Amino acid sequence: MTAPFADRALAAVRRVGNPICLGLDPHLDRIPGAFGERARDRSLPRAERARAVGDFLVEVVEIAAGRVPCVKPQSAFFEVLGADGVSQLERVTGAARGAGLLVIADVKRGDIGSTAAAYAAAHLAGADGDPHLADAATVNPYLGTDSIQPFVDACGASGGGLYVLVRTSNPSSAEFQTLETPAASAPTVADAVADAVAGWGADLVGDSGWSSIGAVVGATHPDELARLRARMPNVPFLLPGYGAQGAGAADVAPAFVRGHEGALVNSSRGLLFPPRADGDDDWRSAVSRAIDTMAEDLAGALAR
Amino acid sequence: MTAPFADRALAAVRRVGNPICLGLDPHLDRIPGAFGERARDRSLPRAERARAVGDFLVEVVEIAAGRVPCVKPQSAFFEVLGADGVSQLERVTGAARGAGLLVIADVKRGDIGSTAAAYAAAHLAGADGDPHLADAATVNPYLGTDSIQPFVDACGASGGGLYVLVRTSNPSSAEFQTLETPAASAPTVADAVADAVAGWGADLVGDSGWSSIGAVVGATHPDELARLRARMPNVPFLLPGYGAQGAGAADVAPAFVRGHEGALVNSSRGLLFPPRADGDDDWRSAVSRAIDTMAEDLAGALAR
Repeated sequence: MTAPFADRALAAVRRVGNPICLGLDPHLDRIPGAFGERARDRSLPRAERARAVGDFLVEVVEIAAGRVPCVKPQSAFFEVLGADGVSQLERVTGAARGAGLLVIADVKRGDIGSTAAAYAAAHLAGADGDPHLADAATVNPYLGTDSIQPFVDACGASGGGLYVLVRTSNPSSAEFQTLETPAASAPTVADAVADAVAGWGADLVGDSGWSSIGAVVGATHPDELARLRARMPNVPFLLPGYGAQGAGAADVAPAFVRGHEGALVNSSRGLLFPPRADGDDDWRSAVSRAIDTMAEDLAGALAR
Repeated sequence: MTAPFADRALAAVRRVGNPICLGLDPHLDRIPGAFGERARDRSLPRAERARAVGDFLVEVVEIAAGRVPCVKPQSAFFEVLGADGVSQLERVTGAARGAGLLVIADVKRGDIGSTAAAYAAAHLAGADGDPHLADAATVNPYLGTDSIQPFVDACGASGGGLYVLVRTSNPSSAEFQTLETPAASAPTVADAVADAVAGWGADLVGDSGWSSIGAVVGATHPDELARLRARMPNVPFLLPGYGAQGAGAADVAPAFVRGHEGALVNSSRGLLFPPRADGDDDWRSAVSRAIDTMAEDLAGALAR
């Protein structure tokens, strides 16, 4: 019997002692050292530039292994190098899973019926499938239930997980997500999506008490976070917005229950490209320190 | 000066005399003949299976060239074969553009800020960029303006085009897209998105009178199609839902003005995998006949 994603994720959080999701967003302009020089050198074949991105991230994965429960590669920064970039996404995913990290493919896909089933097969391997594919993926709900169900079915069959966009962290997210509706029971679009997410995942609640169908809720909206936590009591959250986007540990606290349960806090730029003093070219130590600092920061806010 | 996508699309429609978008959705299970056998043979290396998919579609592109204005590869069916599939998507896109067809990458991406910019660079080449990337792409609006603006900027710079999901063709599409809002001026979520699409594209209206920022509106909702056409008078539509999904030529007519202007009608399964009599293994003639039949069908409905 394959352990459900939600149970595997909580076990991983307990093992390392923090709920950090390390976002692997390899902006070509920011990759440090010789890796960055190769990645940005347009005179090199694309495959070699992509390999430099992969080389960098495989080292990051080695630094992170055993110290965070999961990583979240952002597909866009691989796709920008075409098939060669996607090949490196497969390589980095395999390296992370091989190092015992959970992998959330940040692909935000959303399409109808059989197309959604193809996307699920393309990105979600769950617990026992192709080790170069992810444990979980992010998806967009705009097309409704029949665009999500194939992913939910794949999660049920494979021990995979899903994080559905509910309330995102970006400045424009309010435009459609907080449109008011006349329904007293679900006063905004995001509330209606939240209720749907809870329903989609109702049959996939594991022994941990958490569903494998989660929600993306921006850490940049702490008031809504508390409200949405109450609205989706069994739904684990993936929280973007910490660090570079402005949210701190106190802002994410409302997503959590019983200490570290109920959410993963993502940081991408803040962990992958932490500030260094002039002349300090030791990016590895900087990444390592940034992980420690974030873990301490969260431990303080979640200790209650 | 690069011609804007909307002007290039209208010129292509006039050249071939129909507004057909041929959807390249290579369901592995349905690819005909020896191509299909190779594509489905799990004992073969993945790269060889993907090459069979590409071989099939390159032949389809040869059949379609000069007879339809554009093709729309569905990314999911390439991604399901990983980096090897994406490599074939690049190959098929290059073959289609080389044959004079416009290419709309059906990727339905949607993400924030710099990530959206990476997706735009990954998929949109516009008129003069990498010939293995598309002229236009589909995107999802759920994250709001800052997730769309990088694509709009890329379109402005390159002569590329965008089709934003407004009202999709699938059965569950009403769940969130037709949620009512209290605004008299935009009574549903889809209306609010439609107004945003018109605004995003206002600066990209070409000599044709049409914007390069278009909308995806399902042909399966003819009443809403008429309403949304009035709401977005300069916005070209991409209409899924024709054929296999149930809509006919009369259903798509409200999207058009002045004969063939204002929309592209997509058909994927109906053109790529048309029904054949038992024992008829000539899929090439069947595809060719299906294109002719759809063109005649539309000509009858749009002649008024």
